[in-house]
Amino acid sequence: MSTLTLTDVPGFRATGVICGLKTSGKPDLALVMADKPCQWAAVFTTNAFQAAPVLYDRALLTRSGGQNLRGVLINAGIANACTGTQGAENAARMAHYAETRGNLTPNSIFVMSTGVIGHQLPMDKVEQGIEAAFQKLSPEGGYLAAEAIMTTDTVPKTSFIQVELDGNLVSIGGMAKGSGMIHPNMATMLATIVTDAHLTPADLNTALRHAINQSFNRVSVDGDTSTNDTVIILANGQSHPTPLTGPALNAFTVALTSLCTDLAKMIARDGEGATKLIEIQLQGAQSDAEAATAAATLATSPLSKTALFGNDPNWGRFLGAIGRSGIQVNPEQTSLWLETVTQKTQLVDCGQPLTFDAVALHHALAESAEVTIIADIGMGIGKATYWTCDFSYKYVEINAEYHT
Amino acid sequence: MSTLTLTDVPGFRATGVICGLKTSGKPDLALVMADKPCQWAAVFTTNAFQAAPVLYDRALLTRSGGQNLRGVLINAGIANACTGTQGAENAARMAHYAETRGNLTPNSIFVMSTGVIGHQLPMDKVEQGIEAAFQKLSPEGGYLAAEAIMTTDTVPKTSFIQVELDGNLVSIGGMAKGSGMIHPNMATMLATIVTDAHLTPADLNTALRHAINQSFNRVSVDGDTSTNDTVIILANGQSHPTPLTGPALNAFTVALTSLCTDLAKMIARDGEGATKLIEIQLQGAQSDAEAATAAATLATSPLSKTALFGNDPNWGRFLGAIGRSGIQVNPEQTSLWLETVTQKTQLVDCGQPLTFDAVALHHALAESAEVTIIADIGMGIGKATYWTCDFSYKYVEINAEYHT
Repeated sequence: MSTLTLTDVPGFRATGVICGLKTSGKPDLALVMADKPCQWAAVFTTNAFQAAPVLYDRALLTRSGGQNLRGVLINAGIANACTGTQGAENAARMAHYAETRGNLTPNSIFVMSTGVIGHQLPMDKVEQGIEAAFQKLSPEGGYLAAEAIMTTDTVPKTSFIQVELDGNLVSIGGMAKGSGMIHPNMATMLATIVTDAHLTPADLNTALRHAINQSFNRVSVDGDTSTNDTVIILANGQSHPTPLTGPALNAFTVALTSLCTDLAKMIARDGEGATKLIEIQLQGAQSDAEAATAAATLATSPLSKTALFGNDPNWGRFLGAIGRSGIQVNPEQTSLWLETVTQKTQLVDCGQPLTFDAVALHHALAESAEVTIIADIGMGIGKATYWTCDFSYKYVEINAEYHT
Repeated sequence: MSTLTLTDVPGFRATGVICGLKTSGKPDLALVMADKPCQWAAVFTTNAFQAAPVLYDRALLTRSGGQNLRGVLINAGIANACTGTQGAENAARMAHYAETRGNLTPNSIFVMSTGVIGHQLPMDKVEQGIEAAFQKLSPEGGYLAAEAIMTTDTVPKTSFIQVELDGNLVSIGGMAKGSGMIHPNMATMLATIVTDAHLTPADLNTALRHAINQSFNRVSVDGDTSTNDTVIILANGQSHPTPLTGPALNAFTVALTSLCTDLAKMIARDGEGATKLIEIQLQGAQSDAEAATAAATLATSPLSKTALFGNDPNWGRFLGAIGRSGIQVNPEQTSLWLETVTQKTQLVDCGQPLTFDAVALHHALAESAEVTIIADIGMGIGKATYWTCDFSYKYVEINAEYHT
């Protein structure tokens, strides 16, 4: 985790407070505010059941064009999803209460919720929390905000990057939450990113979508896509007077992608019950898209993920998962390697199983917090990188004993 | 489990013997033989990595048209998958050894393997096992055969059905194995079915495919499709002189589907670590195909399956899984019920969450070995039934500690 947070970007303040939605009594309401209206881009869940805040935000952006967007208000503990008409009213009420409390124009607050599905928000507690959050807002509050959006996350997730673009120092800071119900079909969790870069709305949108496709859309914990997944970026434009273009715009996109990848890997590493970060490097596919499909299938294979939890180089399960992904594979030209912090071991060479020291590899896996599976499927030059985690007793415990 | 087995079908003998492939020392080689050449139909895995026996059988059927097919030889403990050229040689050698030992014509033995991937078969042990199996073959050996094909299965799986067709009593008997790496994309495990019915090859093929689509293709334990999945049916035709047609043929297909459904549900109930059989009734979809897609997604949702292990009616996870399946859903017209052995509880009515007694439902779930999720997604009249199991600590234990 970076020691710098989104409030290290000039022009942004944030905080996190306790409003009583989490039964643990931990902070559960985060507020991120820009000092002036921002450019924005946002990406939402593709789940057919979209949570009330997602529906509210989409309508807000359509209705207002997001011209006045100033801040993001996020609660954890209750997802406000599958909550019918009352849930829709509560999402709007949450935004309007914050706009009134902050003396803001309408359509300036974007809302997100995360937590249990099917429960209604206790609006008196939420409103008290909003009061407290506006009182506590500070240019040092980024870490508190990142803590307040956690659910089963074990660590807050923040990242920060600076780049010089056309002679101007540009900052990008972000925070994310996500530990279970993590699978891309788009943004797979909640993330708020802020920057002082100046971009046209179209370029900011393109940059965010590029970054998400290489990062949040390449991470899976359990294959379950949430009803609430949302990523937003706010850009206040104050680091330079005119919108970025050409090489500087490309450099911004690279930096944003790097920040999103950093956050995405934090999510995989902190997957519910995870003991390991697993990186999958799928190469030799007919296309990058086919490589991503195969990598995603491997990343969600319970048999592969439990084997990795057991530190068992059971590579047949990895090939089995790739083979059922529906893409073209050349079994006779398929090779496979497992890489730990200390060793890289080839297990299959052009379809032939190799002899290897299984005991040594077992110990290497057991001692490695990061493991890379490299598979070449012998069809072409398509490739993709994907991140996931292992599947442990703890995952079952967290999700069997998370009572509604 | 039925007390009758495939050897209760006239004209078939079987057995199971120990040849030393399982480290447990349990029986691990099964042989099923017909007294005369049979009609057959077979369906194989769609995994791109096809095991050596699958490739051998496909070539056998193409080469010979299966004219001489007499029996099925199955080993458990080693899957002979991802074993390169030596694996291909071993699959052929296994079949040829049995053909020689049984004084059979070439292309009369069909082979299957199940177990760990990437290991070579110790052919001396397999050959000794084949010797023993031919000595022990008996018209009462069906149960021994069903035991010998088990891997992580906790119970042997056999089923038997009799129907009167055009005045003749027709028997169908089957056995299956499968506990992990279970997900349809076709036949999802090993099954051998025998019958004394008389059908044309084309009708037998159509009947088997229909039955599989309604049974083995509707069951999931972990979403992982195996490299070895194979279902074969042998029909010796001795119960009546001419091939079935018209209503009698339809009645045979219904009986075969019933037998396959019985075996498929045994597989879900005996899923690795399962404490419950889960039936999913997905209705109100635009089409039966969309209903099956949504049901399959729910059946493989780790969040839903761990919640059911925890006896937690966390219905938001069920809707979340349906919603990410990519099919059309009408959230405002979606309703959901949970049914246990003792009660049926509606949780969502036309998009609105209902108040229910969560403690009582928790206890009802805890006491029920079978749970049905009924979801109506409000789009049309498409429907599908699907079977799966819950996701427990034991699943992780079995698969993390199953060492290669």
